[in-house]
Amino acid sequence: MAASGKNVGDLGESALIARLAARLPPPPPDETWSGDDAAVVAVGGDPMLFTTDLVVEGVDFRLDSFSGEDVGWKAVAVNASDIAAMGGAPRAAVATLGLKPDLPLELFDGILDGALAACRRWAIDLVGGDISEASELSIAIAMTGELTGTRPVLRTGASVGDAICVTGALGGARAGLMLLSRAVNAADEAQRLVQRQRRPMARVAEGGVLAGFASAMIDVSDGLAVDLGRVLDASAVGCDVDPGLVPVDPGIAAVTGELAVDPFSLALTGGEDYELLFTVAPDEVDSAIAAVERLGTAATRIGRVVEGPTRLIGETDLTEYKERSWDHLRIR
Amino acid sequence: MAASGKNVGDLGESALIARLAARLPPPPPDETWSGDDAAVVAVGGDPMLFTTDLVVEGVDFRLDSFSGEDVGWKAVAVNASDIAAMGGAPRAAVATLGLKPDLPLELFDGILDGALAACRRWAIDLVGGDISEASELSIAIAMTGELTGTRPVLRTGASVGDAICVTGALGGARAGLMLLSRAVNAADEAQRLVQRQRRPMARVAEGGVLAGFASAMIDVSDGLAVDLGRVLDASAVGCDVDPGLVPVDPGIAAVTGELAVDPFSLALTGGEDYELLFTVAPDEVDSAIAAVERLGTAATRIGRVVEGPTRLIGETDLTEYKERSWDHLRIR
Repeated sequence: MAASGKNVGDLGESALIARLAARLPPPPPDETWSGDDAAVVAVGGDPMLFTTDLVVEGVDFRLDSFSGEDVGWKAVAVNASDIAAMGGAPRAAVATLGLKPDLPLELFDGILDGALAACRRWAIDLVGGDISEASELSIAIAMTGELTGTRPVLRTGASVGDAICVTGALGGARAGLMLLSRAVNAADEAQRLVQRQRRPMARVAEGGVLAGFASAMIDVSDGLAVDLGRVLDASAVGCDVDPGLVPVDPGIAAVTGELAVDPFSLALTGGEDYELLFTVAPDEVDSAIAAVERLGTAATRIGRVVEGPTRLIGETDLTEYKERSWDHLRIR
Repeated sequence: MAASGKNVGDLGESALIARLAARLPPPPPDETWSGDDAAVVAVGGDPMLFTTDLVVEGVDFRLDSFSGEDVGWKAVAVNASDIAAMGGAPRAAVATLGLKPDLPLELFDGILDGALAACRRWAIDLVGGDISEASELSIAIAMTGELTGTRPVLRTGASVGDAICVTGALGGARAGLMLLSRAVNAADEAQRLVQRQRRPMARVAEGGVLAGFASAMIDVSDGLAVDLGRVLDASAVGCDVDPGLVPVDPGIAAVTGELAVDPFSLALTGGEDYELLFTVAPDEVDSAIAAVERLGTAATRIGRVVEGPTRLIGETDLTEYKERSWDHLRIR
């Protein structure tokens, strides 16, 4: 393949992952490899979920605004979220740490504390790891999971007519990130938003119950616009989303003056909320939402799956929001 | 735990991994977590092997002497070696890449090519991955494996009276590393040693057959002295090794003038040979060695397991060699 003098930063993270995926051989019929929140591999006849996520200092977190505990928690939570988005329960994890030699031992201990706290929260066994010297702090976690239902919920399953739904509320984690780079605001809502950024909650129980309902599912890690686009691409369908129904984190409005952002736009492009975006057959929407609500978590129908290539958020094309979204690695 | 102002570099990699291991809760009776080449976790009732290894630019490889293909190959091989050392067959892997935005796309493609070539070599499915921006190139691979025998071969199983054996020959990979930092030597032996450093071969088939014989096993990643010490620690036994029997890579002698090193010392402290060090009951030694030799790989009895705390390589205490060995992260 001709690389024509380009650098990886010319492509950006999404295009590089697609480039990697295109080089993999095709999986056997009962497996799913790259292209979903987690891979599905057959182990001893049973499907096992397998995923990995890397967080890097200065890119995914900054040590002046994240404690070691925050970093360790988040590294585990983002992987648990990927397993949840397959309709699975996380099971075992291994971790690698790239460490600067001058990293305080106290920070190292904090990272372990945070990672182990997140493991306890979601019943994950941290079973091993590796450590290497590095010039910046990085943590890669790989995690296996088991199905809670009879099949994994893939991104490919959305059908025309299905309802599009999302758990919780969106935009808060990105608002929290923006607040982190400003002077600390003591308001309760600001603190809650910052906490959403630092200590994301994976929707593990919700993913488990949705395994019985959802036709497709993804976790909202890169923003609703990007992640909804991924489901639509994988399922070869379109969408008609009612902007008035998108659940915007109510805390954003409370700090809007400070941030000078449009809360709705943040909800569509913010990322890192780790809510679950799912599609479900119209006759099962109410049951699915009720099942999530029984766990104490909101779930909202925001639109419906239509024939492609239509992709509308109200009158606006989804692409307009996607282009405003975040892509690590892309040179900006 | 009081951290008393220390940095991680004051402890070194081995002590940090021990610190991590000490914080993990105890595993259930049928599982093994940290402290062996790979973890053993029960998945659907069957034991599954699970391991991870991180390689970092400037620490584990340099881009002026490793091609992208070398880096990708090595990242996979070191994990496959860990699975082999449990008496297992590697099964599925996920990879994370930390990438500098100015990394040439050609190098990225090369890394994938090398990783996929190693996956084909050992029948490993690369099923997914994650990419993040970083200030240096790093690759973390996590790999699952299946047992080839009825039980995993742990480090804890060595008994007094067992023979201590090793596959292949030792010291070559470190000699290759030393040659890399010098002007390239065109001699065939030098090229072979360099290749041992750049493209290590995991002893996967050998680990599979040894699963039926070995009482304990480990891969020689940090040098015979360190890795033998780990087996002795885990099994609470000692050793009496005959220095004349230790298989030193014959290529080292051919380049000794250039390197000004003692080949024997390199064999004991060099690391990265990824040979298998195993113990086996005395009445099964000949069968075990013959089984490995049928795969075209040498296997050599180098000594025997004795009561602790005796740890002798001829007249020299094992500790003397261990202290000369490599520990990433330790500030030197």
